Amino acid sequence: MRLELITTGSELLLGRVTNTHQQWLGRQLADIGYSLTRQTTVPDTGDAIAAAVKEALSRSEVVLTTGGLGPTGDDLTRDAIAASLNRPLEEDRRVLEHLRHYFQRRNLAMPDAVRVQALVPQGALVLMNQFGTAPGLAIEPRSGRYLLMLPGPPRELRPMFSDQGLPWLQSTALPPRKDFSCLTLRLTGLGESEVEKRLTLRLQPLTRRGLNVGFCARPGAVDVRFVSEGVLAVELTAEAAGLARALLSDYIYGTENQSLEEVVLDLLRIAGKTLALAESCTGGFLAHSLTDVPGASEALESGLVTYTNAAKVRWAGVSENTLKQFGAVSRQTALEMAAGVREAAGADFGIGVTGIAGPAGGTDDKPVGTVFLALADRRSVKALERHFPTDRETFKRLTLREAFDWLRKELIRAKNPAD
Amino acid sequence: MRLELITTGSELLLGRVTNTHQQWLGRQLADIGYSLTRQTTVPDTGDAIAAAVKEALSRSEVVLTTGGLGPTGDDLTRDAIAASLNRPLEEDRRVLEHLRHYFQRRNLAMPDAVRVQALVPQGALVLMNQFGTAPGLAIEPRSGRYLLMLPGPPRELRPMFSDQGLPWLQSTALPPRKDFSCLTLRLTGLGESEVEKRLTLRLQPLTRRGLNVGFCARPGAVDVRFVSEGVLAVELTAEAAGLARALLSDYIYGTENQSLEEVVLDLLRIAGKTLALAESCTGGFLAHSLTDVPGASEALESGLVTYTNAAKVRWAGVSENTLKQFGAVSRQTALEMAAGVREAAGADFGIGVTGIAGPAGGTDDKPVGTVFLALADRRSVKALERHFPTDRETFKRLTLREAFDWLRKELIRAKNPAD
Repeated sequence: MRLELITTGSELLLGRVTNTHQQWLGRQLADIGYSLTRQTTVPDTGDAIAAAVKEALSRSEVVLTTGGLGPTGDDLTRDAIAASLNRPLEEDRRVLEHLRHYFQRRNLAMPDAVRVQALVPQGALVLMNQFGTAPGLAIEPRSGRYLLMLPGPPRELRPMFSDQGLPWLQSTALPPRKDFSCLTLRLTGLGESEVEKRLTLRLQPLTRRGLNVGFCARPGAVDVRFVSEGVLAVELTAEAAGLARALLSDYIYGTENQSLEEVVLDLLRIAGKTLALAESCTGGFLAHSLTDVPGASEALESGLVTYTNAAKVRWAGVSENTLKQFGAVSRQTALEMAAGVREAAGADFGIGVTGIAGPAGGTDDKPVGTVFLALADRRSVKALERHFPTDRETFKRLTLREAFDWLRKELIRAKNPAD
Repeated sequence: MRLELITTGSELLLGRVTNTHQQWLGRQLADIGYSLTRQTTVPDTGDAIAAAVKEALSRSEVVLTTGGLGPTGDDLTRDAIAASLNRPLEEDRRVLEHLRHYFQRRNLAMPDAVRVQALVPQGALVLMNQFGTAPGLAIEPRSGRYLLMLPGPPRELRPMFSDQGLPWLQSTALPPRKDFSCLTLRLTGLGESEVEKRLTLRLQPLTRRGLNVGFCARPGAVDVRFVSEGVLAVELTAEAAGLARALLSDYIYGTENQSLEEVVLDLLRIAGKTLALAESCTGGFLAHSLTDVPGASEALESGLVTYTNAAKVRWAGVSENTLKQFGAVSRQTALEMAAGVREAAGADFGIGVTGIAGPAGGTDDKPVGTVFLALADRRSVKALERHFPTDRETFKRLTLREAFDWLRKELIRAKNPAD
């Protein structure tokens, strides 16, 4: 079974936006046991879209397209595909009603251009858009070939795919399967080649039996992916994951799409503990990442972004003397930030981070990338120094991993004091 | 001139990571006047990689690949391409030295597997990796065809492309050109079809002369892109941008890759003003987004993430009475958060946001998606109510746009009091 995704949009090729559809749709399909075999991006021209779809349909059973169903002049996917499949467009009453209703509810006049979205290729199944105007379209262009056209905006595409597109695919081309398994372990604290070195020999008996192992390095983290097909699929991936856990348990923070933030929040909730943050160089990234997880409010008491010296004194209770004697970027300041925010917030844990994200602000003594992290609980406060000389975004991410992995280990230690 | 990008990696197709190379490389090429004509993702198998590269080279003058140059067993790009081009691999001394030095500096033993990265296809130009181990490779597989292989990790790929890959392409396949122009205007506060409606007729004289207009809707924002090729390219896009500015100036917050955060920080710096934030439902996203911009510390005094009621009282000075009478998600609470944080921080502006990001926590009275925003300056404080019933991430983003666009307009009004 071959599955292809065609993402349309000149803005993607001109680098104006990031393609998130590939990741999201790839994930949804993998979750039901199918993997995309190819993804292609083409510009917003009728010819390019028609050629890519034709090529994909000649190669693969299932073809998904995204984008180009909207009302503007560069939305050409519907027209290009209808023409290339010889399916005349017909106005669909139900879609027209939906469009009228959409604008009515918002007290807006419906622009004429919008009406083009009610045009549907003959024989296509219409997927109504609950969060926008452009409907999705599902077609079986010839026996055994399935084409699903989805709108571009993620908040329209995602619910439409989950509620209508995926059920259609499952009822036609992609029946449930039990002979595919994909397991991912997420590690932090070890490099990619070191992870592979520690695993490869031990996994050989399994890879010989058909296990595939993939590695993916991200800033401060490595994902190890076990994939297998066939009757032994579930057994092989489970055995591989068990082996990896036995060898690398300290470094494994989660599985599949679990983020370190989710893991830490779960551990905090289970322990009934709360956390307060005082961030300087990460500028709110730690708080923002935690609060992306629904229910974060149960464990995150509060966060401070104390960028200036005055803010460190005012909010986090750092002493002016410490700032004068050791500087804002110092072990002592981090210690006082963590202890200060924890105490002021009445939380169980406090984290303080202060450093130099760059590109400016470094000195010989404390070059760009220097960061001090501190972790306080009710009894004590500890600090550590790290050096992440990289770009601003990666610096924030590496600091986040360091801080949250530290807290994760503390929480696990507290849970299993015998270790 | 046709340019293709092939991103390799099963993790991309299985939806384990987002493909950021497409955006970044597309942008770099567009900046020098060339646009990608196709992008393809293939899995980590030698056959798939070799087939995709062969296909791309038959179609296009320039082919870029990313990924698969590392040390692990699923890094197959180098081998697959060397085999398919009939270029035997030879160990490169300079790369081997670099690898040894890389591990020495880190006081680590060099794993044997790493050595494979010193293998170079015959006749290839080696691009040394300043931020990792795997070198990039540049090859002219036959006259007039150019193949550039880049490593997968963004922090390795980006400097390598800018410092070595791009100069190589410019000296071989992509000479400087003046007959291409791409201009983007970024708008907020108007829907995509409304933007098009207001522009289309007025732009017709320019589109007839060869101007291309593209629209891209993102949460709470629309990008309008003017592209033109030929001797009139620069003139046509400049004229189009001027026209759009005249028609939609209130809604245009920036150009090209400028973010709303950068624009607001610039306006604050120019005015010599500072900002303090009190965030509840956005959980630090406003502070994090501002501090992603280098130099944010000049204007962002501090930020509070006051998730709990206690934190709103303690840090932002909201009265217990207000919380009791109106609730944490209310106009009154937002007003007190904005005024409170501004005053406590001694900043010129204060922003307060409180709302229900969801998925839980909504009531009949205040459903999920309800948010109150408040903006305080030294003289007054105002609030507004919005409804963004969507996912958590989009909710945060829409709230950010609303808040920062409001501040942007205040700053512009203060600059031009005559308006």
